[in-house]
Amino acid sequence: MSKYKISPFAPKTFPTLPPLAGFDMATAEAGVKYKGRTDLWVLRAQAGTQVAGVFTQNLCPGAPVEWSRKALETDTDGPRIVVVNSGTANVFGGQKSRDAVVETAQGIAAQFGCSAKSVFLASTGVIGEPLDASKVVAKFPEIKNRLDGDGWEGAARAIMTTDTHAKGATATAEIDGVQIRVNGIAKGSGMIAPDMATMLSFVATDAKISQPVLQDLLSELTQTTFNAITVDSDTSTSDTLLLLASGRAEHEQITSLSDPRLAGFKSALRDVLHDLAMQVIKDGEGITKFVTIKASGAVSDISAKKVCMSIANSPLVKTAIAGEDANWGRVVMAVGKAGEPAERDKLSIWMGPHLLAQRGQVASDYTEEVGAAYMKQDEILIRVDLGLGDGEATVYTCDLTHGYIEINADYRS
Amino acid sequence: MSKYKISPFAPKTFPTLPPLAGFDMATAEAGVKYKGRTDLWVLRAQAGTQVAGVFTQNLCPGAPVEWSRKALETDTDGPRIVVVNSGTANVFGGQKSRDAVVETAQGIAAQFGCSAKSVFLASTGVIGEPLDASKVVAKFPEIKNRLDGDGWEGAARAIMTTDTHAKGATATAEIDGVQIRVNGIAKGSGMIAPDMATMLSFVATDAKISQPVLQDLLSELTQTTFNAITVDSDTSTSDTLLLLASGRAEHEQITSLSDPRLAGFKSALRDVLHDLAMQVIKDGEGITKFVTIKASGAVSDISAKKVCMSIANSPLVKTAIAGEDANWGRVVMAVGKAGEPAERDKLSIWMGPHLLAQRGQVASDYTEEVGAAYMKQDEILIRVDLGLGDGEATVYTCDLTHGYIEINADYRS
Repeated sequence: MSKYKISPFAPKTFPTLPPLAGFDMATAEAGVKYKGRTDLWVLRAQAGTQVAGVFTQNLCPGAPVEWSRKALETDTDGPRIVVVNSGTANVFGGQKSRDAVVETAQGIAAQFGCSAKSVFLASTGVIGEPLDASKVVAKFPEIKNRLDGDGWEGAARAIMTTDTHAKGATATAEIDGVQIRVNGIAKGSGMIAPDMATMLSFVATDAKISQPVLQDLLSELTQTTFNAITVDSDTSTSDTLLLLASGRAEHEQITSLSDPRLAGFKSALRDVLHDLAMQVIKDGEGITKFVTIKASGAVSDISAKKVCMSIANSPLVKTAIAGEDANWGRVVMAVGKAGEPAERDKLSIWMGPHLLAQRGQVASDYTEEVGAAYMKQDEILIRVDLGLGDGEATVYTCDLTHGYIEINADYRS
Repeated sequence: MSKYKISPFAPKTFPTLPPLAGFDMATAEAGVKYKGRTDLWVLRAQAGTQVAGVFTQNLCPGAPVEWSRKALETDTDGPRIVVVNSGTANVFGGQKSRDAVVETAQGIAAQFGCSAKSVFLASTGVIGEPLDASKVVAKFPEIKNRLDGDGWEGAARAIMTTDTHAKGATATAEIDGVQIRVNGIAKGSGMIAPDMATMLSFVATDAKISQPVLQDLLSELTQTTFNAITVDSDTSTSDTLLLLASGRAEHEQITSLSDPRLAGFKSALRDVLHDLAMQVIKDGEGITKFVTIKASGAVSDISAKKVCMSIANSPLVKTAIAGEDANWGRVVMAVGKAGEPAERDKLSIWMGPHLLAQRGQVASDYTEEVGAAYMKQDEILIRVDLGLGDGEATVYTCDLTHGYIEINADYRS
């Protein structure tokens, strides 16, 4: 599907995401930019669905993000509709972008007899080209006729841009003895950095959970999943993560975060978010190595995460990994430039199981051969201990390769 | 000299840096790491020399940086010596690194009959390998015998690592009708980001200026020169900029920043620092385009500089420039991710003389052809106006290319 080489970490097959009570969907070829592939997805969630959302922290967000933020605050008795297109991000198109958003929302609302203000919109692709909403709206009657509960894989394909494969995940849990399910899809492989760290992800469940609880769960779990990955430190203007709960599962509604019945659902939701986030980072543009960065011994968890991000975003660390060079000196540099409390002579560094540096100098039994052999792995773990406190964090990233340059030096051409 | 392709922006020749009263120097092949080239430089400044310094803000600095910070605070009646080696940065070598620093300083102090505590040290090269000080110290007798005022170009060559050419600059001014001169050399081409933004630079003058005035001038002028350049956002553990003033020029000493006689000197010093900083960025690893980023209309100068740095460090902006793609959408993204006050619908963007985007959308008379033609230039100007206030800043950077990956994926091998 992509013109780029498929990620070596791509799953062999798309997982089976069964239909979920309360949701149906369809895709179409609207021809926004791409030819010969789907680029439009509409998800309909039945009346009563609760929605939580997390959006980009970029201060120049796209018109669709602004629209969806308002939709999240809008109550409705009717269905909830999500409309997603690929090809253009509809960002920085001025009044044209804002008009396209209104036209799209009103178009779908007219089809489904709901309020335009309750429609969620997301667009992904090039920045600076307004969406031609007429192309999208023209497809809505066809889409309405083809709505089906079984369409998650097609949905994941329709929202791809430079992704080299479609991304989906699913998990189940029980609430009151009733099985509930969480399905999710995501897209994104560049311009990936917190906050939010994916461009687009949509997660649906049939569980019956109140909106405030959904929102709290989503915000919490995002920190260790989508907001713990970085490809290139660049934060998209379009990042959107929506969690929709139809409430069709036959259990009593959960209305409190401290409800013990929430545990299984939370775990399932975490699994799906984590799985999707890992698929996004493992499809990082030009990736040849999947890298986990762990920091411990920091003065706080927040400090540990900043140290992890400084390592994960360092071009020198990322190119060393691409070159299979256990260059822990660059890790020291990246720890030091994070601006977080650190003392050179308390710092220890591991690559995988191997202690490379301890308390400010190379470990006594470390040899370059050990490091060189380890760096040939596809999946690399870099662990640092700062020796100052009990703060810890984990961040996921990829290496920086010729492939990244190739993809991004000619993306628009 | 370098195994890498010489920067297309390299000056045709090294400028003529005449001897300066009060300074002599020599280089040697100490064999720290490189073979068949000089890797050691010693500068002797006569008694009475005033010294100002600016060092890396990296919180894991090298032992030489720690030593030189103390030397800066040490008064002396004797000469000032600067010892610089390339090949290893002598960073994160634990006690061995600290011992090497002491041994080097004591070795040179013994030769020149001065206090070890007044010696400045700087090392550049791989992190994590302690300096074998015996190799350096063994060369000091030979160096003492060959001291000469005429050696700036050789000095600039001896301190190179991945630099593709030696970097020097000179300027003159008058104080009280007396001509004074400023000579400077620098090295650095990767791991370049504020603060400090060069790995090593040494500037000398015969002007007679008190230490506090020198320090204030250096700190101020660094902000718009060395601290306004970035290759890859990575901050070295070894960055050192020293300014030495021998006071041999026959004018009355300047002891106040507000002394009107300082104007010419300040201008000459700014020219030398700017020239060296531009040579460093124009030798950025893998550079094919030299890029100036200007921001105006920010809420403050500091805010404007953060916006510039966000654009300059964005891998997506840098790869677009490498691909000669006038992808202003990525500039919008980088402005938005800077975290500084910005409003999408007040933002305007120019590339060179061409207005691409105005108040949140593409400029009415802009065409892709105009942008594409402009991006073929070797030197690119990106200008953004935020439309919020009167803060402005300028930052200099380079593109992100296959050459950067090549240099950094195999630097140690």
